Amino acid sequence: VTSPLGAGHPAIESVRWAPGGRAVRIIDQRRLPGEYVERDLATLEEVCDAIRTLAVRGAPAIGICAAMGLVVAAERDDTPGGATSARVAELARAIAATRPTAVNLTWALDRVSRRAAGPEGDPARMLAAMRAEATAILEEDRASCRAIGEAGLSLLAEGSRVLTHCNAGALATGGIGTALAPLYLAAAQGLRVEAIATETRPLLQGSRLTAWELGRAGIPATLVTDSMVSSLMAAGDVDLCLVGADRIAANGDVANKIGTYGLAVLARYHGIPFHVAAPWSTIAPGTATGADIRIEERDAAEVVSLGGVRTAPDGIRVRNPAFDVTPAALVTSIITDRGVLVPPYHFGPGT
Amino acid sequence: VTSPLGAGHPAIESVRWAPGGRAVRIIDQRRLPGEYVERDLATLEEVCDAIRTLAVRGAPAIGICAAMGLVVAAERDDTPGGATSARVAELARAIAATRPTAVNLTWALDRVSRRAAGPEGDPARMLAAMRAEATAILEEDRASCRAIGEAGLSLLAEGSRVLTHCNAGALATGGIGTALAPLYLAAAQGLRVEAIATETRPLLQGSRLTAWELGRAGIPATLVTDSMVSSLMAAGDVDLCLVGADRIAANGDVANKIGTYGLAVLARYHGIPFHVAAPWSTIAPGTATGADIRIEERDAAEVVSLGGVRTAPDGIRVRNPAFDVTPAALVTSIITDRGVLVPPYHFGPGT
Repeated sequence: VTSPLGAGHPAIESVRWAPGGRAVRIIDQRRLPGEYVERDLATLEEVCDAIRTLAVRGAPAIGICAAMGLVVAAERDDTPGGATSARVAELARAIAATRPTAVNLTWALDRVSRRAAGPEGDPARMLAAMRAEATAILEEDRASCRAIGEAGLSLLAEGSRVLTHCNAGALATGGIGTALAPLYLAAAQGLRVEAIATETRPLLQGSRLTAWELGRAGIPATLVTDSMVSSLMAAGDVDLCLVGADRIAANGDVANKIGTYGLAVLARYHGIPFHVAAPWSTIAPGTATGADIRIEERDAAEVVSLGGVRTAPDGIRVRNPAFDVTPAALVTSIITDRGVLVPPYHFGPGT
Repeated sequence: VTSPLGAGHPAIESVRWAPGGRAVRIIDQRRLPGEYVERDLATLEEVCDAIRTLAVRGAPAIGICAAMGLVVAAERDDTPGGATSARVAELARAIAATRPTAVNLTWALDRVSRRAAGPEGDPARMLAAMRAEATAILEEDRASCRAIGEAGLSLLAEGSRVLTHCNAGALATGGIGTALAPLYLAAAQGLRVEAIATETRPLLQGSRLTAWELGRAGIPATLVTDSMVSSLMAAGDVDLCLVGADRIAANGDVANKIGTYGLAVLARYHGIPFHVAAPWSTIAPGTATGADIRIEERDAAEVVSLGGVRTAPDGIRVRNPAFDVTPAALVTSIITDRGVLVPPYHFGPGT
């Protein structure tokens, strides 16, 4: 795996097989930017815990991690005679339960589980097929990121100032990211582009992760708090917005990190294009509209403290939805590995 | 000083004379909500430092603190024969230089300085006049807060859910606050009102201060990150917005905590009223429009760390404007101690 920026910029591999393939190796994103730590997930519990606690996060990356994790868990399963397809389905359900919003999670688990379905045969053969499928998911995502980057390049020009939210970069995927992929390819071509990264409270994926990976790649980035975006837009400092997605409904409504919807409203108000970048696997034709998307509500502790420091009084009520829904009407285009889509969006059952 | 909520709720006195009057006693707002600490400011340096580091903050409160601080500094001045009016002007300039945006700071310093101007007379008499003026500024602000609260009561109904930003409460003033004053008076009358407090990055005045003072008063409050507001508005969970102001231009443009402008845009998009509450002293007829307001850019450290924990990689560029400007066109009403004003706003030289 090489970086689009060349040898001087080692690629970020957020999820991959550990050497020997008995575990899933991830970059522990909770430790960034302070420390770069890799962790090997070798059991069902470790896989579930890593996804639930956001050690691995980003819709494509958790899909890949779930797929590989299902293989690792099935291989270690102590059912006499080896894991059955029923047991695989049970393991998949446990992993799927970790986070409700990203469609890539269930999509990837379904793909691997299907290789375990059917009449019971040779367990070793079943596991090999599952492993091949999980590896394919990783490799397809890597290719998909590059294809998104190429499709998105058309939106960038010399000097473009791109506002992005949360982290939809290499850390969120198996490849060079979704929303950040066009920036990486632009930089590799010598185009001077700049990013504005929102810090993305409560978990600061923007300051901890996006700022880190753009800095590592030498792409100029400016960090702002989420509340500063409107000022920058009013001052003419933002040329376009480019964000990722956790689930795209059949009508083009987009679930993404909390705050995305507000950015889309602000972009519309200021006449700034608002683009969503995602692999085709993020599209959920079975989800009719944004109203059908279940939004994960996370622990209040994420809002009332940071880095172990309590920042709010005891007893305060807290809301902590991890995602919001941006109506399709506010989305200028959806950049996918199959090209750039513009409204009206319609993703039918055959998508 | 008693709380509008009665004996069970001791009033918050964010700025007052220390016993004996040789120092300004403040609540050190940097320590909240973890610790309630009062500090006495007895020198020019202590006064300037407290304002600059936000130990005391909020436009009305820093005006009061500056006025009292100028008296304390003039009284301690070691000019032979006592401080002259020229020396008082010098001290006032030093205090005014601490923060550029809030008009109340220079307004209050000007009021006290005028009592030192004119032909040099009896220094003790001059200092007494200055002290009386500073005390009047505190007492007028206290009355003004209550008048704002009474004017703003008309906007509230049983069950109103009021979104507020930063802290425009008792901690920000000499009395019961500006934006929070109507909530205190409503609660005192037995009206059930609820607040939604944005945490207000980077310095978390919403979670640290607003959540603290509302909790102390028993007013139900829900804390959200700044980026969650748009979701709550879309869900119909916000009835009105009520924020403070640091400077109101002659045309009604409002400078307030960074993020206020974005909230005003979101409120307009969702058809939610957006009100600004401020004492008349916050109006600056000499400032023609928002474009003439100098916006303080604060240290990058506020954005890249929290509670001593570094949250962004080294070397990242940062923007940190402390305020933004909301155009008058987005302001449904301005609630002042002289009543509720509606557009078109025009504050002439005689204001």
